[in-house]
Amino acid sequence: MRYGIIGTGGVARTIADKLVSLGHEVTLGSRSKDNETAAAWAEQAGPTGHHGTFAEAAEFGEVVLNATPGTVALDALRAAGPERLAGKLLIDLSNPLVFSAEGELTLDPVNTDSVGERIQREFPQALVVKTLNTVTAPVMVDPSRLDGEHNMFVAGDDEGAKARTVALLGSFGWPSESVIDLGDITGARAMEMMMPFWIRLMKAFGTAEFNYSFKRAK
Amino acid sequence: MRYGIIGTGGVARTIADKLVSLGHEVTLGSRSKDNETAAAWAEQAGPTGHHGTFAEAAEFGEVVLNATPGTVALDALRAAGPERLAGKLLIDLSNPLVFSAEGELTLDPVNTDSVGERIQREFPQALVVKTLNTVTAPVMVDPSRLDGEHNMFVAGDDEGAKARTVALLGSFGWPSESVIDLGDITGARAMEMMMPFWIRLMKAFGTAEFNYSFKRAK
Repeated sequence: MRYGIIGTGGVARTIADKLVSLGHEVTLGSRSKDNETAAAWAEQAGPTGHHGTFAEAAEFGEVVLNATPGTVALDALRAAGPERLAGKLLIDLSNPLVFSAEGELTLDPVNTDSVGERIQREFPQALVVKTLNTVTAPVMVDPSRLDGEHNMFVAGDDEGAKARTVALLGSFGWPSESVIDLGDITGARAMEMMMPFWIRLMKAFGTAEFNYSFKRAK
Repeated sequence: MRYGIIGTGGVARTIADKLVSLGHEVTLGSRSKDNETAAAWAEQAGPTGHHGTFAEAAEFGEVVLNATPGTVALDALRAAGPERLAGKLLIDLSNPLVFSAEGELTLDPVNTDSVGERIQREFPQALVVKTLNTVTAPVMVDPSRLDGEHNMFVAGDDEGAKARTVALLGSFGWPSESVIDLGDITGARAMEMMMPFWIRLMKAFGTAEFNYSFKRAK
């Protein structure tokens, strides 16, 4: 399968490496064609790893993943172009974190909207699924780094798109029964709003490598 | 010990029952002195269960618990009176849920503020600790309803007040090692912002009786 990844940061490259290791072909997309990080990634990735503009990555991908920060995701996807996203599964991994000069963390959007919803509204012909934003990058592509059963979440309006996302997560190592469906794309709001809690937990645990699991009534 | 509980809803009465069962004396406080729910609760609770106004409950309590909805908590505590909260452990259990006419759920305050922080700012002489808002009432007072280890959270500015809260949680059945300290009272923001996620999970699980636990890196 051909994947286009919008973004060149740590999350983008971690996902890209995993997809290449699974035998897929990947184009890492950046704002400019000569992004050095993207070029270096493609160089070490071998013949199935490529780099290009946001538009080239989106054009290339049968599936497109947004791995830019949530605060710039809409701009990046506009640059990719709605016609290159139409009809495609568009997986949004982002969190709209805003860090103030004082180090205070807030979200924008929040509460009444989310990046996932904004993307779906702006690109109504894309099949947007929110997932993976609730764990650190190494855990996204290797859940076995954590012992025992723990959970991933998906939210999106299209059931088929969610099923394809669950299958992709399965290839990353997430058993389908570990993936909890939070409903339509407004569930992205709930998933993004976990970020302040996640950051507090990271400080309490002294590691970013943790994840949620659940205990239910007997 | 004498406890004053601000509020008469399901959470308030569940906590009140538990405190009475543990041998404590409790006054359930409501806006009006002749609240029928509060009177009925006190009647069935026996000689150590009382009811009265917000001010009477706060006056009575060596420890005060806010169990009103987050959207009315400040008003209720103003009615209780700052002089009756000064110097006391004030445990805030609330979530600032706002339900729209369309059934949409949002939070107010959110993101840059929280009920816990607002209470601490408005009553600087109270020792505010946020806890228990992340689980349904039956689980608050009986964590053994869920199998295995799962977690509770505390946030507050005063270390001694948090330690006393952890001890109280211990008497409810929460082992001290299951209680995660999320830092100062701004951690209340993270805890309250879990609510949209919690509600989605409740729908996915088909029960409110669940809780978070965590897997960490090996």
